[in-house]
Amino acid sequence: MILDKINKPNDIKKVNPDEYMLLSQEIRTFLIKKISENGGHLGSNLGAVELTMALHLSLNLPEDKIIFDVGHQSYTHKILTGRKDAFDDLRKFKGLSGFPKRSESDCDSFDTGHSSTSVSAGLGLVKSRDLRQKSYTVVSVIGDGALTGGMVYEALNNAARLSTNFIIILNDNNMSISENVGGISRYLQSIRTFEGYQDFKVALQKQILKVPKGDRIVDRLKRYKNSIKQLFVPGMFFEDLGVTYLGPLDGHDINNMVRTINEAKKINHAVLIHVCTKKGRGYAPAERHPARFHGTGPFDIETGLPVKNKDKPDWTDIFSTVILKAAARNDRLCAITAAMPDGVGLKRFKNLYPDRFFDVGIAEEHAVTFAAGLSAGGMIPVVAIYSSFLQRAYDQILHDVCIQNLHVIFCIDRAGIVGADGETHQGIFDLSYLSSIPNMHIMAPKNKWELSDMMKFAINFDAPVAIRYPRGTAYDGLRDMREPVEFGKAELIYKGTDVSLLAVGSMVETAEKVRELLSEKNIDCSLINARFVKPIDEEIILSEARNRKILVTMEENVQSGGFGAKVLEFLENNKCNENTRNVKVITVSIPDKYVEHGNPLILKKELGLDAESIAERIFREFSEISN
Amino acid sequence: MILDKINKPNDIKKVNPDEYMLLSQEIRTFLIKKISENGGHLGSNLGAVELTMALHLSLNLPEDKIIFDVGHQSYTHKILTGRKDAFDDLRKFKGLSGFPKRSESDCDSFDTGHSSTSVSAGLGLVKSRDLRQKSYTVVSVIGDGALTGGMVYEALNNAARLSTNFIIILNDNNMSISENVGGISRYLQSIRTFEGYQDFKVALQKQILKVPKGDRIVDRLKRYKNSIKQLFVPGMFFEDLGVTYLGPLDGHDINNMVRTINEAKKINHAVLIHVCTKKGRGYAPAERHPARFHGTGPFDIETGLPVKNKDKPDWTDIFSTVILKAAARNDRLCAITAAMPDGVGLKRFKNLYPDRFFDVGIAEEHAVTFAAGLSAGGMIPVVAIYSSFLQRAYDQILHDVCIQNLHVIFCIDRAGIVGADGETHQGIFDLSYLSSIPNMHIMAPKNKWELSDMMKFAINFDAPVAIRYPRGTAYDGLRDMREPVEFGKAELIYKGTDVSLLAVGSMVETAEKVRELLSEKNIDCSLINARFVKPIDEEIILSEARNRKILVTMEENVQSGGFGAKVLEFLENNKCNENTRNVKVITVSIPDKYVEHGNPLILKKELGLDAESIAERIFREFSEISN
Repeated sequence: MILDKINKPNDIKKVNPDEYMLLSQEIRTFLIKKISENGGHLGSNLGAVELTMALHLSLNLPEDKIIFDVGHQSYTHKILTGRKDAFDDLRKFKGLSGFPKRSESDCDSFDTGHSSTSVSAGLGLVKSRDLRQKSYTVVSVIGDGALTGGMVYEALNNAARLSTNFIIILNDNNMSISENVGGISRYLQSIRTFEGYQDFKVALQKQILKVPKGDRIVDRLKRYKNSIKQLFVPGMFFEDLGVTYLGPLDGHDINNMVRTINEAKKINHAVLIHVCTKKGRGYAPAERHPARFHGTGPFDIETGLPVKNKDKPDWTDIFSTVILKAAARNDRLCAITAAMPDGVGLKRFKNLYPDRFFDVGIAEEHAVTFAAGLSAGGMIPVVAIYSSFLQRAYDQILHDVCIQNLHVIFCIDRAGIVGADGETHQGIFDLSYLSSIPNMHIMAPKNKWELSDMMKFAINFDAPVAIRYPRGTAYDGLRDMREPVEFGKAELIYKGTDVSLLAVGSMVETAEKVRELLSEKNIDCSLINARFVKPIDEEIILSEARNRKILVTMEENVQSGGFGAKVLEFLENNKCNENTRNVKVITVSIPDKYVEHGNPLILKKELGLDAESIAERIFREFSEISN
Repeated sequence: MILDKINKPNDIKKVNPDEYMLLSQEIRTFLIKKISENGGHLGSNLGAVELTMALHLSLNLPEDKIIFDVGHQSYTHKILTGRKDAFDDLRKFKGLSGFPKRSESDCDSFDTGHSSTSVSAGLGLVKSRDLRQKSYTVVSVIGDGALTGGMVYEALNNAARLSTNFIIILNDNNMSISENVGGISRYLQSIRTFEGYQDFKVALQKQILKVPKGDRIVDRLKRYKNSIKQLFVPGMFFEDLGVTYLGPLDGHDINNMVRTINEAKKINHAVLIHVCTKKGRGYAPAERHPARFHGTGPFDIETGLPVKNKDKPDWTDIFSTVILKAAARNDRLCAITAAMPDGVGLKRFKNLYPDRFFDVGIAEEHAVTFAAGLSAGGMIPVVAIYSSFLQRAYDQILHDVCIQNLHVIFCIDRAGIVGADGETHQGIFDLSYLSSIPNMHIMAPKNKWELSDMMKFAINFDAPVAIRYPRGTAYDGLRDMREPVEFGKAELIYKGTDVSLLAVGSMVETAEKVRELLSEKNIDCSLINARFVKPIDEEIILSEARNRKILVTMEENVQSGGFGAKVLEFLENNKCNENTRNVKVITVSIPDKYVEHGNPLILKKELGLDAESIAERIFREFSEISN
């Protein structure tokens, strides 16, 4: 095995060039095996094997800096920097991260996770290098999908002014997670398919010089150096912005990429190398089903099928069904996704209602303001975005939707602990950032039927409203508890005498277990399904606080600005009420720190969010108060 | 006066074309007079007079929709839609807003305030129109400055796919608030200065057809329709994205603009009309000093000088001096602004340390991740951005700076009530959105000396840290209170026995007055300057809560997720402490609603944030408890 020789950074340089192809095959086999066992991002990594090898052949790590945009395509980079053996614990608790991590290796120069950050970060490293008089090379590797995110243009606009080297590699697989969208995608496609463009450019230039008035024309043009360049260079879009364009190159031809990267290093400004790769390359199921193999759980290598079939629908499936039904009933309803029609459950909607479906690319900011425009025009837009990605659109929610009090529905998937993707993907801030916004309303369903009921409520509620639900299996307990959703009203599930549990969304299921555990210790708990996080149900909170010893709020969200904080504030303002003055409030929430990757069950235990930890905490407090 | 005939939408259509010039002069005179009296945005409005007239001549309002990006250039639009008389109360409490407001007129089709939203919102209105089978025209008017914001590209990338009409007018005055920056600006400049470009294009096309191999070339090109277009069309950058480009046009030639807009309406996809205007046009001082007359207070029309000269430095001035000194001492310090070197006080820094100064354009997202990159490379970046604009970068702060715990200093100007700019500009959310982020640290200075001390602290503190300060005169009281800034420590200013006032930043000055007012009523107050909002000083809070009746938190921020909420939470977790159990906590903060425009003193009174209201509230509570 050639791969056996790769045990630390730069080991690849000792490999005989004749063996590059073999090594790339070994890496692919390794990736397929490890990801089939642990799950992970497959397609993008299979596509970037040769590109990453070329980078490692041409750069010196850790001195030189590679920033992987999004970062899920960094597996080959991890293999080539001595982390091969750690793949057995890929994405497991305390194991290898699925993303670049400065804390994991000094060859990881910048942590990524969300899209379209790499050019900005790279530009920062370039400026630092120049100001501190160092001489390393900085390379940002960005996919064509990430090119639909506006940050990249902000960065390119700034990169244009550089008078030192900065290399941007556009890893163009003609795909976002799903099919890529929009003008920029079509533009790249036109470059890729324009055979012989380079030759043509030269020929045309010569022809013009030959024609009678040709020299007069060229003379005139010479006064406008930039403009003549625009006429004859492919990738003019980038050249227009002031970034030198090289390409397109075959992204699986290692030697040619190494040559080009070495050439690019000599250029004293920002240069973009356009590299064409194939997502999933070398593994037929991944080539055929790129969306499915973008991020995957364990699968059978032979068949490409998941090892474990879902036995129950997850929250995304429920949303997917619910919005279809709603769209059938209401032709003003439309749906927006930021490049994840599969991920958020809008694939069927897209097929059935293509006119009312909008995939805007990896462009959460535009998604939200576009929704505001749709709403101002009389439509009812449903914006379906993962919790951690919606962070990108905080200002747009606050400034474009909520000031105008527009009827936009946010369906926030992956809210709470998401697990294997780690810090960058945990959806643990949405209750806080949304709560700070006036006119916003926030709900969270306890079970799958309630998601449906809440959607119906939201569609009839003429104001901004968010519904958040977690990753994973949709809870199907408490089926009989299905009182109509009423504005600002919580739902009483059990009435108890000692302690009151007020749980938000996914925590209702946990609260049921807490209630059982405490009942074994003869503590009788009420269980309230909060339903609304904003506004809170003041009436039920007062009634529960009255004459009870402990009131417990439970949420999968950070403490600051969350549900518990609101309950505390409300009770403080009603302290004069003799009957509620002495209730002790325990706020169960996520502590003020980032949550790493790992199995959600393990993570929740670590964070004290599992039923046992919560029950114990309540029991301890209860015993103290009772003594 | 022709202007007298303009009293409702579409009245301009009755004006004789010969009188357009005269009308535009009357509008300019009107604008200069009103803004000289009330303050407001002058330069951008003077530049857009003819453009707005052309729009109103070619469109039917309110059926057709105009979306003004940022919106401060909408004064002529307000005049032409019957709001002329309201200009006497421009930007005053309950008076005419300085921005488009749907609540103010049905001719305002979308509220704006922050940059680069208009194309997204316009696209939403277009899609709504098509889905609801209406036929109005949608026009987004965007400046070249706003074109540096990434959202625009996200939107253009989507607009490319339209098969119905959508007009984008690029109002290009070659300026942001200050000088414009970056590749896109240089690109527009190249179009503007390329005389005869249009003629040349046609000539070149003819020449190529004449040359021997010309037809072969053109034949070959015909197979690539898009590509040939790229070669011969100015504004290829936009054409590359799939948006038809028309222009450049003289933005002060009304008839030509009307003709072009009418032509553009016939195009069945997105079309961008490039219009060149002059900021401040027709008023010499504004033409000469565009940054000063971007947003201005009342001024003398003769001289262009402000009516009231500042007698004391404002917070921005203090920051400006402080960062200069810091930069002299530490060559790793660098400064970043998002298109507002004047506004945030970095003009002198720019002149003295050009290499360490970065104006990234209206690109807050890039600004923050760029800073993260600078920090990862060993620099100490200071990101100076207004509170409400930093909302744009919530995800970048959370995801790119704080996960990696990078040393980035955020200097947040205009934090709190800003006044005349209204809802979109109030800086009342930063304590909340920053508090939710792990690893973030937040400070607020009580007076001008403390801003200096906090900067020194921040430069030596190797982690993310934010310092927030308000608009207006820097407080220069409490000069003697200058204990060294210590991590997480508040400052005791007065020790009292009955009530404890815990004030954040600007509220310390208010708290002093509250203390005086209450002492007249024989209530003795402690006064604590919180200094740190995150982390809070638990020790001093416990000590103040001990045996006092009331503890009051005071902040210019919304309640949810703010300082008061943190204090409440801490006290609840320490309830077992007998001595603090019974303290009543009053959280003085901004209620959960948007704050309109008006004089900050009036607004604070309305919100109950002025000393009198607070003192009264405490007195009421104190009397109740004492009885």
